[in-house]
Amino acid sequence: MAVNNEIGIGLLGLGGIGNQVAEHLLQHLDAVSSHLDRPLSLRRVLVRDTALPRAVTLADGVLTDDFNDILNDPDIQFVVEVMGGEDPAADYLKRLLDKGKSVITANKEVMAKHGPSLMEAADRSGAQLRFEASVGGGIPIIGPLQNDLLANDITSIRAIINGTTNYILTKMAQEGLDFGVALAQAQALGYAEPDPTNDIEGIDAAYKIAILGSLAFHTAVAPEQVYTEGITGMAAEDFEFAHELGYEIKLLAIAERTDAGVQARVHPVLLHQESMLAKVEGAFNAIEVCGDLVGPVVFHGQGAGAAPTTSAIIGDLVAAARRDGKSTTSRPWSKLPMKPMADLETQYYLRVSIADQSGVLSKIASVFGENNISIASLTQKDGDNQLGTAQLVITTHPAKEAAMQTALQGIKNLSVLHKVHNLLRVEPI
Amino acid sequence: MAVNNEIGIGLLGLGGIGNQVAEHLLQHLDAVSSHLDRPLSLRRVLVRDTALPRAVTLADGVLTDDFNDILNDPDIQFVVEVMGGEDPAADYLKRLLDKGKSVITANKEVMAKHGPSLMEAADRSGAQLRFEASVGGGIPIIGPLQNDLLANDITSIRAIINGTTNYILTKMAQEGLDFGVALAQAQALGYAEPDPTNDIEGIDAAYKIAILGSLAFHTAVAPEQVYTEGITGMAAEDFEFAHELGYEIKLLAIAERTDAGVQARVHPVLLHQESMLAKVEGAFNAIEVCGDLVGPVVFHGQGAGAAPTTSAIIGDLVAAARRDGKSTTSRPWSKLPMKPMADLETQYYLRVSIADQSGVLSKIASVFGENNISIASLTQKDGDNQLGTAQLVITTHPAKEAAMQTALQGIKNLSVLHKVHNLLRVEPI
Repeated sequence: MAVNNEIGIGLLGLGGIGNQVAEHLLQHLDAVSSHLDRPLSLRRVLVRDTALPRAVTLADGVLTDDFNDILNDPDIQFVVEVMGGEDPAADYLKRLLDKGKSVITANKEVMAKHGPSLMEAADRSGAQLRFEASVGGGIPIIGPLQNDLLANDITSIRAIINGTTNYILTKMAQEGLDFGVALAQAQALGYAEPDPTNDIEGIDAAYKIAILGSLAFHTAVAPEQVYTEGITGMAAEDFEFAHELGYEIKLLAIAERTDAGVQARVHPVLLHQESMLAKVEGAFNAIEVCGDLVGPVVFHGQGAGAAPTTSAIIGDLVAAARRDGKSTTSRPWSKLPMKPMADLETQYYLRVSIADQSGVLSKIASVFGENNISIASLTQKDGDNQLGTAQLVITTHPAKEAAMQTALQGIKNLSVLHKVHNLLRVEPI
Repeated sequence: MAVNNEIGIGLLGLGGIGNQVAEHLLQHLDAVSSHLDRPLSLRRVLVRDTALPRAVTLADGVLTDDFNDILNDPDIQFVVEVMGGEDPAADYLKRLLDKGKSVITANKEVMAKHGPSLMEAADRSGAQLRFEASVGGGIPIIGPLQNDLLANDITSIRAIINGTTNYILTKMAQEGLDFGVALAQAQALGYAEPDPTNDIEGIDAAYKIAILGSLAFHTAVAPEQVYTEGITGMAAEDFEFAHELGYEIKLLAIAERTDAGVQARVHPVLLHQESMLAKVEGAFNAIEVCGDLVGPVVFHGQGAGAAPTTSAIIGDLVAAARRDGKSTTSRPWSKLPMKPMADLETQYYLRVSIADQSGVLSKIASVFGENNISIASLTQKDGDNQLGTAQLVITTHPAKEAAMQTALQGIKNLSVLHKVHNLLRVEPI
């Protein structure tokens, strides 16, 4: 295949995320390329040391330690940057964009500090700059702000965008731990870095809200303009007293547009327990965007990790590589079979009224048994004294829908049955 | 301005949504056009009766009752369809797409029943078909499925996508109402139609999950292939017993990809109270998408209404009208002022240890009073007996950050103060 019929890709960085991006591109090349009119080709990967062993198997000559091999390769049109850090990434991205190469980056620090000037560089050269992976892992938030929600005047963004601190705060809230203990646990489980400063002091969240605030209000918000306070001062007692008052404690990153200007801040807050953001637990992220038309929209998911970040990067890469401006290409539709409802396997909840007399439970239970359905719980509830009935609430272990429907018919045929009130399915969490 | 330098738009339907779309296009023409390289122009609006009075003021000659005026106008490249219903909308959309005109539609029934064939018609003529508004109001979900999440193998979609039924189920859960009473309340408040069949029987949700399932699995899922069960059989007792077991009851629309094929179903389920979907209340919608890379992502917001739907339509319109395939145009950056932290106005939570002696409370209170900060609650907590201290937890009414910082300094200067433990801000819900 001629090189000029391919979409040439360069990759900067081959750590955990770079490794998964490279693997995904190599293992799912046809699937990703099916969204495009030309196949993708991973031409070059920049690493510090080409001699180190790598988890992913790359063709000879793909690894390089010279950035110029990517910058000056005329067949590389798209560059994915997952090196992290400001230096030299910011300089690299500027030079790539100036040369007209489109950039897909996961680099929050670079985008927070240099985003507006890099976007201008992209505009000048006609290149694209996409950075969905820089905030919220694989949660779509940059795309929605730039596209889906663009008709709105955005009034505020409030976000839990640091999984490390939300994990620590959740532990403190649920287990009454002190900050130091919760931090040590988070470090032991890999949720916090050995040097956790950027997370626990709110710096990482400040980068991300600078990016989101800049996009939402279309004005440059620099990280040093974000008031930033971390969670190191939190104590177990604060959680106890906050709960008594009806609140959870969360590290929020907030960007608001007011008559007096834009305000951006990161600090712990007391948040009413009924708020959607108060319900975000563990290492999850959530971003609430308030628009004049759409009202509040919340985006919730895993905010970090190699796989979610790869999801965002590949999505950006395909969007950037689409030449025709269309949202989709005409992939042939697959013809998957439909699985019939009778083959569903799930748990059930059944509520019936039965004659309140001895021996009834065993009759009901034997219908379940005949259909190989295992009862998980059975509770007798008050029924109708005049009719002499009692209610039964039964939940089952997972069973086939067909078996459950047969059992239901069997129960309906019992002389002791008064009424089937409801059969509901129990959905896993 | 010459017509050929404009983006000509036709609008089918001028009910509540059509009216807001027309108003938005007329009142925010410059803002919407700023995302594009040419201005937009609303050229024609199709209505049944051109003589009826209209809430929006349109130029002479814009209203028409003849679909051919839009179909055959060479200067109309984009058509927004908000008529609703299958007939004649499906036929209109087919003819528009065949003619190469791009279509933005909010029509879930047409997209559920004819989506795949309409998408093929668009592919054949090179037109675009966008339908973000057909599911979840203004919540971005079609765009994320088509673009941001395309690197994922989607394993399941689980959604609360009918606001009427979620409102009714929330009322039943919270107030112990029976179905009929809750339905009547929803109708009185406008959350349910006078004829609520489509909502309460699950038909509306089945349309929407057919659309989402088709997109997620790239295979045609027809509404009649969706197992559909409504909420009319729900009783107050089911909520009582479900709560005892740790569940909420929700009407879920589910599309799953299994080894045995695609399964799509709409029915009430018991859902563990800790699940994100169980926490979705009232008329809100939420869609959970599970992908192999991204894990579970939840999109939450208002699922209906003229303003949210307009948000989705305008977003689609701009995306369709972008000719260069870029995600953004180079709008000049605004230079909004930053509002200083000192000007923040919010509520506060303060925890201090003080000498456990008489007169201390009045000293603290007077510092707040001097700074015009009104105390909302004050609770004395156990302190350290050996040190002879007590803890105070104080919350305030909204106050300026500058005043609160001055007050904090004043409290620190009090001889009765032992320690300031924490000053936190209280975020509104």
